[in-house]
Amino acid sequence: MNWLDEGALYSQIAMFLREDLGRGDITTQAIIERNTRARGRFVAGERMVVAGLEAAEEVFMTLDSEQQLEAFASDGEEIDGGKVIARTSGFADVLLAGERVAINLLQRLSGIATLTRAFVRAVEGTNTEIVDTRKTTPGLRMLEKYAVLLGGGRNHRYGLDDAVVIKANHVMVSGGIASAVKRAKEKLGHLHKIEIEVQNERDIADALENGADMLLFDGLRTDAVTRLVSVAREIDSDIKIECAGAITLDNVHSYAEAGADLISIGELTNSARAMNVSFQIQPY
Amino acid sequence: MNWLDEGALYSQIAMFLREDLGRGDITTQAIIERNTRARGRFVAGERMVVAGLEAAEEVFMTLDSEQQLEAFASDGEEIDGGKVIARTSGFADVLLAGERVAINLLQRLSGIATLTRAFVRAVEGTNTEIVDTRKTTPGLRMLEKYAVLLGGGRNHRYGLDDAVVIKANHVMVSGGIASAVKRAKEKLGHLHKIEIEVQNERDIADALENGADMLLFDGLRTDAVTRLVSVAREIDSDIKIECAGAITLDNVHSYAEAGADLISIGELTNSARAMNVSFQIQPY
Amino acid sequence: MNWLDEGALYSQIAMFLREDLGRGDITTQAIIERNTRARGRFVAGERMVVAGLEAAEEVFMTLDSEQQLEAFASDGEEIDGGKVIARTSGFADVLLAGERVAINLLQRLSGIATLTRAFVRAVEGTNTEIVDTRKTTPGLRMLEKYAVLLGGGRNHRYGLDDAVVIKANHVMVSGGIASAVKRAKEKLGHLHKIEIEVQNERDIADALENGADMLLFDGLRTDAVTRLVSVAREIDSDIKIECAGAITLDNVHSYAEAGADLISIGELTNSARAMNVSFQIQPY
Amino acid sequence: MNWLDEGALYSQIAMFLREDLGRGDITTQAIIERNTRARGRFVAGERMVVAGLEAAEEVFMTLDSEQQLEAFASDGEEIDGGKVIARTSGFADVLLAGERVAINLLQRLSGIATLTRAFVRAVEGTNTEIVDTRKTTPGLRMLEKYAVLLGGGRNHRYGLDDAVVIKANHVMVSGGIASAVKRAKEKLGHLHKIEIEVQNERDIADALENGADMLLFDGLRTDAVTRLVSVAREIDSDIKIECAGAITLDNVHSYAEAGADLISIGELTNSARAMNVSFQIQPY
Amino acid sequence: MNWLDEGALYSQIAMFLREDLGRGDITTQAIIERNTRARGRFVAGERMVVAGLEAAEEVFMTLDSEQQLEAFASDGEEIDGGKVIARTSGFADVLLAGERVAINLLQRLSGIATLTRAFVRAVEGTNTEIVDTRKTTPGLRMLEKYAVLLGGGRNHRYGLDDAVVIKANHVMVSGGIASAVKRAKEKLGHLHKIEIEVQNERDIADALENGADMLLFDGLRTDAVTRLVSVAREIDSDIKIECAGAITLDNVHSYAEAGADLISIGELTNSARAMNVSFQIQPY
Amino acid sequence: MNWLDEGALYSQIAMFLREDLGRGDITTQAIIERNTRARGRFVAGERMVVAGLEAAEEVFMTLDSEQQLEAFASDGEEIDGGKVIARTSGFADVLLAGERVAINLLQRLSGIATLTRAFVRAVEGTNTEIVDTRKTTPGLRMLEKYAVLLGGGRNHRYGLDDAVVIKANHVMVSGGIASAVKRAKEKLGHLHKIEIEVQNERDIADALENGADMLLFDGLRTDAVTRLVSVAREIDSDIKIECAGAITLDNVHSYAEAGADLISIGELTNSARAMNVSFQIQPY
Repeated sequence: MNWLDEGALYSQIAMFLREDLGRGDITTQAIIERNTRARGRFVAGERMVVAGLEAAEEVFMTLDSEQQLEAFASDGEEIDGGKVIARTSGFADVLLAGERVAINLLQRLSGIATLTRAFVRAVEGTNTEIVDTRKTTPGLRMLEKYAVLLGGGRNHRYGLDDAVVIKANHVMVSGGIASAVKRAKEKLGHLHKIEIEVQNERDIADALENGADMLLFDGLRTDAVTRLVSVAREIDSDIKIECAGAITLDNVHSYAEAGADLISIGELTNSARAMNVSFQIQPY
Repeated sequence: MNWLDEGALYSQIAMFLREDLGRGDITTQAIIERNTRARGRFVAGERMVVAGLEAAEEVFMTLDSEQQLEAFASDGEEIDGGKVIARTSGFADVLLAGERVAINLLQRLSGIATLTRAFVRAVEGTNTEIVDTRKTTPGLRMLEKYAVLLGGGRNHRYGLDDAVVIKANHVMVSGGIASAVKRAKEKLGHLHKIEIEVQNERDIADALENGADMLLFDGLRTDAVTRLVSVAREIDSDIKIECAGAITLDNVHSYAEAGADLISIGELTNSARAMNVSFQIQPY
Repeated sequence: MNWLDEGALYSQIAMFLREDLGRGDITTQAIIERNTRARGRFVAGERMVVAGLEAAEEVFMTLDSEQQLEAFASDGEEIDGGKVIARTSGFADVLLAGERVAINLLQRLSGIATLTRAFVRAVEGTNTEIVDTRKTTPGLRMLEKYAVLLGGGRNHRYGLDDAVVIKANHVMVSGGIASAVKRAKEKLGHLHKIEIEVQNERDIADALENGADMLLFDGLRTDAVTRLVSVAREIDSDIKIECAGAITLDNVHSYAEAGADLISIGELTNSARAMNVSFQIQPY
Repeated sequence: MNWLDEGALYSQIAMFLREDLGRGDITTQAIIERNTRARGRFVAGERMVVAGLEAAEEVFMTLDSEQQLEAFASDGEEIDGGKVIARTSGFADVLLAGERVAINLLQRLSGIATLTRAFVRAVEGTNTEIVDTRKTTPGLRMLEKYAVLLGGGRNHRYGLDDAVVIKANHVMVSGGIASAVKRAKEKLGHLHKIEIEVQNERDIADALENGADMLLFDGLRTDAVTRLVSVAREIDSDIKIECAGAITLDNVHSYAEAGADLISIGELTNSARAMNVSFQIQPY
Repeated sequence: MNWLDEGALYSQIAMFLREDLGRGDITTQAIIERNTRARGRFVAGERMVVAGLEAAEEVFMTLDSEQQLEAFASDGEEIDGGKVIARTSGFADVLLAGERVAINLLQRLSGIATLTRAFVRAVEGTNTEIVDTRKTTPGLRMLEKYAVLLGGGRNHRYGLDDAVVIKANHVMVSGGIASAVKRAKEKLGHLHKIEIEVQNERDIADALENGADMLLFDGLRTDAVTRLVSVAREIDSDIKIECAGAITLDNVHSYAEAGADLISIGELTNSARAMNVSFQIQPY
Repeated sequence: MNWLDEGALYSQIAMFLREDLGRGDITTQAIIERNTRARGRFVAGERMVVAGLEAAEEVFMTLDSEQQLEAFASDGEEIDGGKVIARTSGFADVLLAGERVAINLLQRLSGIATLTRAFVRAVEGTNTEIVDTRKTTPGLRMLEKYAVLLGGGRNHRYGLDDAVVIKANHVMVSGGIASAVKRAKEKLGHLHKIEIEVQNERDIADALENGADMLLFDGLRTDAVTRLVSVAREIDSDIKIECAGAITLDNVHSYAEAGADLISIGELTNSARAMNVSFQIQPY
């Protein structure tokens, strides 16, 4: 993530800490002496692709600007269970106050990176790329899309404002594929490519004849994909094709072989399970 | 959720919309006439406990204060796949702009409610209650804890500031169970109950003799739980006991039978998969 | 502007009012009775294309939600000096508190729309379109780009995040045109078109051979434009070409004739003079 | 500007950057290596009074706290075209991300300072001072008023809350000059001076007999100004007089000679054209 | 208070409620049925000048926009103990959630208004006015200054930005009274009057000869005030004089008789005790 | 206060400074040279318990991050009138801009700490503790509760969300003491103790039989307290008892002797008078 994301990261994490801390960590304040020092370490409980170390460090630095993490793995690295991912030392109250938010982020983002890696592996040997969707957790999009990159996937658009994708719902209320593509090209064509969802030969012809730059097949079976890819490539041999819709680790390879350039997987961000990561504190 | 949560809900959803919309939905602006009206409906793609309808409605109302949802199921209701959950009608651009955020919320919260319901069913016939944890998605805690309630679970503390739970990490840096409980009672005892994590007979004695109100067993096997529950209840027959730590749908019933009053399940909020919900738009 | 912009508009105008009002309008509070009612009207002091009426109305509605404008011209309409643009009636203290912010907006936005209209007229009869730039007043970009639309121009990108334009400064630090275009296509090519600044035949060849979708000529004389357009169109007959750089009302037509598809004019937003608009209040 | 303005400056510039950057500079991220270093310099394209260097530096420092400007001219200095105003070196992505906002500020503020300087020169040899108005760009008032100071002008009030100016619109709804001045003196007279707009001998008498501290002539011709100044000074030889209303570089000197102590010029802030300033980047 | 203050009032009260409510009123949520309705009334426990009714109403309206107060006294009215000040009816949870913030405001503001009224009474029959200071509670200045008005006092400046008062601390670091007044007149003299703290004859002469508009005597005994007033009035018979510094209800009348035009009392806002007001809830 | 409070402290103080400074300290800007250096010292004008030094230092550091206080007393220390509490040196304009906010905080918080100390002394020799209430100044709760700690008191709950206290108003609308306690235990009993207001023997029996953990007597005379304490202790010898309601320095000792464990005093935070503290500036 670049400087801008880091800036945004800081305020997000301050918000996450406020959510967990409210008026303060009353347990720690009651039982731990103010300046007690301690060490803590994050340990992987299973094999995983690590993601979120930068975010976890920011958690502690937001609480105490001098509390850095010493990392023993890097974001995007695949590690075995049992490995110490990072350690930190500092004030015990800071470690205890930040622990939960840091772990929640590490577990979730590593879960996304790990699942992405599995999908990427499943299409190895093809030219297909795994991309994410806008099915991200509300409020966490930038972090989750970053975890997808770490897993080896690519990012699709970041929001409704930075790319044009005309879906079936748009076509339904805009009077058909031909007119939708035409209008989009007229209004936005000098900046953006026009991607449009199509469901059959007729749609493909309407889309390509009016200048669509990319096709989206959503919820089709692989045999239909194979057939429609060849229809489309006959009209425009360079046309980019994206497949979406309930594609799983089991069938993703066959979609890749069916000719999709991009396969988008909503599950990467909305159904990855949390990786097992623990945080162990020790006194000096 | 009560009026306060609704107030908070409003600003959260405005933030979620800004995340997705950025400078605006360029696709819709380019191809849909400004005042086109349309109807939309949310359809369940599988059996689920519905959660998030109030949030989904707020998404559309944030975009257009007159756009309400007509619900055909209520939050907390268990429905079959295929059922129309709710419908709405209004301006097409509002439906298309809010669709993704509304679905993301419905899918995630229904996932949590559905998984919670499964755990609650698994302990039916015992006196044990299923509770959530602080292992929530950063930024979504109040919504996710509400989904747990809808699933039939109960909420544990909302943050570090509203209840005292002394975990192993606290004990490690605070000089032992006895002194930790003593201090907590001294500083916070007139308002809060003191819950503390214990691992063996000695810990239990130390905790109860110093006035702990509740015990937490984390990561113990069921036979250990059975034994330690009886040790604890001999000292204080009313003592409340919570079990935590990688308890699954398969073994949760045996933990309940081992005598836990509360079983806390992090997976409810950090690993529930998104339910399948779709949004279908039609013109008038 | 659509609902999203209106939402943003509201907070911007509240900020503008706070800037002018500080702790309150002490003159009015001292000398005008609290519930005095009055009428006010905006009068054009010269021929102009009106822009900002929606914004001006929002100024008064922010102060008193029931204070609407009755408009006698619409945004984008060209009117003669002397015409009453709009009138309003309500509390005198609201009219006096909002007057300056409303006029500042009307004068500035009408200035932009009027200047844009002049450029659009100057290229009438050609296929060239007048577009704006990112040379907008900091903080006012969306309003100023809306004024350009009202004047008959088109908008170029809204910010650095929604379109790819590789300028000479980028080329300078990225190792040349060929590699810059290649990388951009690789990373962003499935969503965005790639526009790049070129200065000579060699640049054009490098850009087009690597897949650039659009060329930018910045600061060239018209004869150079004519020549390079023909060079480019020989390689790719459909290639879009934008001209920029100190193009004035006097020479814009010759740039259009030289073959530019788009001419971008920074002056539209950074040097338009304020139109003469006055606000006259009368008691009942 | 003092520490407070700098504080305010920081948040304003962060807002301006967010306006331009949105989710990030996708062009630079795609084609420039992360840690590439580069140098940049601002060059004046014409003779101008420089204003906005402090703001331009803040732009880069907001992106990277260690990125300072080395200035070769100071705010308020008049320089020739061709002069390098300042240079900076640092990360290329920071230079490219901040370039546009920095230039937009420098061009606009230098435009205001340069125009102010021209008006100040035009009244040289008289005792008249050039002052600004509240006809500033919404959101930029403090910066624009600072540019007026750099140009040699003086600031009139900063908002409706820090000084009392009774204009014709106030008189219209408050029952006349005499009663307006009386009330203002009663309510605010121990802190503020009372300035009031007058149009003829009768107004002047009403204003001065009731204790006005300053008179405003708005839109009068120079001969009327000469006559009314002498009427006013006969009643109160020390009375301060301000002239306003479409006064230009051509006629400002004659207004000064007609006896105005202050001449306020709205054009300084609402119609100054942007100065020509460019930013040139070079790799190391 | 006018519309602007009401706007500010709304956000302040939302902040006050968040401070008290945190994540919600857990007692009420646990034991009161959601839609239970109730009535409540504010009762004065002693004789007082009422202040804060508008604020108290805003508290309930912030929680539930339809929950208005029916007032039986008006802000600024002096009432006897036992009187019902206002009543309201609505949802029990809203009454219970808003009760404390509403009472805290009513008690504090009525305390200020009541104390102000006592000081105003103490100087009745003289021409002296009682004014407040900047010794207000941080965060509550506008509300507290409004309470002073309701008590019959007048407001001094609202902050450091809206009037010029040169105190001993300024004189100490600015090189003496004469130069301080001269500079202030030069820089700010056309808008603001210059008030300056003086301690003896010499100071008075220095101040008045350089154009000071108002004198401040701080911490002088009444005999010194009498003497210095006459010294000052000999030089400028109209000069306004303010007395400050530990003036009490017991001696305020003698300061008034000593010739002060204004007497400023910090105690009004920093030491008024809370009035006794209770809130009684009844079910329907 | 811990790191979290310091974080909150910073934004609060920035808000307090904006309230006082508005657009800037015009007096200082007009008459003090920009880089003038000066020294300042806070002097106690009477015997007091100091509170607010950390806050006062934060005021100056918010204006200039290098401007620290050198303290000669510590928060919570009791000092005599005449003592220099702290001194600071730095830029004169920073000292003058921060002076008033810093003093306002020191005076108010020291007032609370001093009054608390007096109540604590009055119950010396008993086992009773003095606690604060939610009758704090809106917006200042955390600072005021911290001042109570410094005075030797203890804090009651911080808001409606972190402890359960069932007052007469709750009982009135919830159907009686027995059912209120029962519901609270059911919903919140595993985390929080249940405190309830009781007025007579019957109430006490209803409360204790249903499991209340703590009783509140509000507004009872000492003889009634003595009698009801013995009634309660007969049922539950360990039951904690709090007394509240217009208890004064004169009668607090007799309430302590009557058997209250906690005595809560609203006056600590809503009616403490400001301590006399002055700030004296000297040039170098």
